[in-house]
Amino acid sequence: MSLIVQKFGGSSVANAERVMNVARIVTDTYKEGNDVVVVVSAQGDTTDDLIEKAKEINPKASKREMDMLLTAGEQISISLLAMAIEKLGCPVVSLLGWQAGFHTNRAYGSARIESIKTERLQSELDKKKIVVVAGFQGINKSDDLTTLGRGGSDTSAVAIAAVLHADRCQIFTDVTGVFTADPRKIPNAKKLKDITYDEMLELATLGAQVLNNRSVEMAKKYNVELEVLSSLEREPGTIVKEAAKMEKMLIRGVTKDTDVARISVVGMKDIPGNAFRMFSKLASKGINIDVILQSVGRDGTKDISFTCAKDYADTAVEVLEDIFSPEGAKVSCDTTIAKVSIVGAGMQSHSGTASKMFGALYEAGINISMISTSEITVSVLIDKELADKAVEAVHKAFFG
Amino acid sequence: MSLIVQKFGGSSVANAERVMNVARIVTDTYKEGNDVVVVVSAQGDTTDDLIEKAKEINPKASKREMDMLLTAGEQISISLLAMAIEKLGCPVVSLLGWQAGFHTNRAYGSARIESIKTERLQSELDKKKIVVVAGFQGINKSDDLTTLGRGGSDTSAVAIAAVLHADRCQIFTDVTGVFTADPRKIPNAKKLKDITYDEMLELATLGAQVLNNRSVEMAKKYNVELEVLSSLEREPGTIVKEAAKMEKMLIRGVTKDTDVARISVVGMKDIPGNAFRMFSKLASKGINIDVILQSVGRDGTKDISFTCAKDYADTAVEVLEDIFSPEGAKVSCDTTIAKVSIVGAGMQSHSGTASKMFGALYEAGINISMISTSEITVSVLIDKELADKAVEAVHKAFFG
Repeated sequence: MSLIVQKFGGSSVANAERVMNVARIVTDTYKEGNDVVVVVSAQGDTTDDLIEKAKEINPKASKREMDMLLTAGEQISISLLAMAIEKLGCPVVSLLGWQAGFHTNRAYGSARIESIKTERLQSELDKKKIVVVAGFQGINKSDDLTTLGRGGSDTSAVAIAAVLHADRCQIFTDVTGVFTADPRKIPNAKKLKDITYDEMLELATLGAQVLNNRSVEMAKKYNVELEVLSSLEREPGTIVKEAAKMEKMLIRGVTKDTDVARISVVGMKDIPGNAFRMFSKLASKGINIDVILQSVGRDGTKDISFTCAKDYADTAVEVLEDIFSPEGAKVSCDTTIAKVSIVGAGMQSHSGTASKMFGALYEAGINISMISTSEITVSVLIDKELADKAVEAVHKAFFG
Repeated sequence: MSLIVQKFGGSSVANAERVMNVARIVTDTYKEGNDVVVVVSAQGDTTDDLIEKAKEINPKASKREMDMLLTAGEQISISLLAMAIEKLGCPVVSLLGWQAGFHTNRAYGSARIESIKTERLQSELDKKKIVVVAGFQGINKSDDLTTLGRGGSDTSAVAIAAVLHADRCQIFTDVTGVFTADPRKIPNAKKLKDITYDEMLELATLGAQVLNNRSVEMAKKYNVELEVLSSLEREPGTIVKEAAKMEKMLIRGVTKDTDVARISVVGMKDIPGNAFRMFSKLASKGINIDVILQSVGRDGTKDISFTCAKDYADTAVEVLEDIFSPEGAKVSCDTTIAKVSIVGAGMQSHSGTASKMFGALYEAGINISMISTSEITVSVLIDKELADKAVEAVHKAFFG
């Protein structure tokens, strides 16, 4: 007998039919003799609908009241799923975040889990009940409801799996696992049997959008074995686990990210501290920087380029113009680019991985405008129009 | 400075515009220097929509999960109202039933309040915050959410007013107060300045549908001064308070109730215990009986007629046929009737009130098929088609 944590996102429980489908997956797992804890997000568009209602009344509502509003979403989905499980004849109880013992800090809208008090969870499991837990939410020291922020339900699931020492944490999505590339774009993309936490983290960061980063980090920290799988097609998914436990592969996947802007400051005076002034100011505005490239410009000036998420581009340009325009440098922004990356722990011990990628792009006639590498990734910036072509070419080079 | 409890029903907060309207009423009361606790129901059709969702998945869902589902409704409305109050610049906090200290028994779906722990409420009021409380809900000893059942938000409001010793509990509805008759039917119906708890109880029972009975009973028990008034039109409403404090009026109002069925058992053998067999069996099925009439029939038999709510009529007929058909009596059911009543504590000390009513009906050519009286009411059963005409005639006789 194992303890399995299963997490279902909003689209998996979007309507009555889908809720019944999830109930069947859950009860099948239970009937195989497992203890089951299910973590659920709000149904389909519920969260967006609630945000819309709030905006109509007060676009500047306090985060405390926004969390009070949004946590109603999972309350609806857990009770409906519990009713569906009741219908299938299995004992079940639904628990809100606070009932399941999720204690967080006070950061409404993006709270961090401080502890999970497992008494209630454990006592319901001891009664042989399937426990359906509201993801994404907790309670703070003032007994007020909080939300964990983006991807919070994944985090809830991994955190429960960690504290209960679950044998596996299954994250159900609308894809059947993690692929070597986006299967909607690259028809011969292959599903990975397994992948390391670090590789998964890079893939998530690079736009694969299968698993939330924070939850993968937590899974790595507490050594929770994750499985990414589909709630609609019943087949084994991709296991995310420690590197030691799996076969080595050169690279795991090819990804693209088009939500990226390149900001350039050209013609800065060559004085010390330019980079510090630039990035400390950007950090203070909460702007995350990705690839950075510094080069010597003409006439003893310097150029710095970097990439960030598109949403931050306007703010970044404003901030930089304030600093550098008075000094005669020019700030520009380019959003017609995409980042294409290869990810794989195997490349650490293989030379030639990067050059194989560059060769594939050269043969496809694609120009590279910036390059960045880490231990397990190589990323290039290219023309956004060519992103799909680039992924295809690179995928072919590595996976045939 | 006073402490005012204000309660708004679902239609008062049905959309963004109405929520803003309620926020203005609340903040105006607050700006006059009062402490304000606001009790809110779920928005408009939210509760019905949630029940529909549940039925689609499992029509026999457990009451525990139904309460988990339904309590999400008020959670949405309290946070939205709090956001609206924030927008108007007043300090505010929304509290769920359990946060406001509502401890109930375990009867999911129709829980009774056992105690209200006022620490949180009081501490928020001490911080000069407007406190918005989710009506209709509480928490039981297992830390599970419960609902108070029909009219629960009125009960929540009165209960808070009682424990906090509020100076007044204002129940906002879609009418401007309690009238001597339904103002939509009787154009010259008069709004009452005040009314006693007992009169209000009779009016509620008799179909006036302004205030929930349980809340009026609680207000009477704890001597909470109620005011029934409109959330849309700003004018003084009707005060519900102790008899000692108000002017005597002969009668307070004329009501009709068309949700009524008359069940008759004709030709019972005249043996002792018929009535006992009949009404104990009906009580065991949870059927509330209203007017009862027993008469001697032909040939040494007896007839018993009584009225009950239409919903129970089929069950009542079934139960009675089981008992009396084998003994040769006939059970019949008539739903073409209405009950018209006059209510007023003043009639206790006045003779002739009933006969004035009967005279008015006689002059209007309306036949009376059953009569029932209590200390402060006189009710008659008549043809349903003539109900409005009857109310008009009786109202004219007493109020001109």
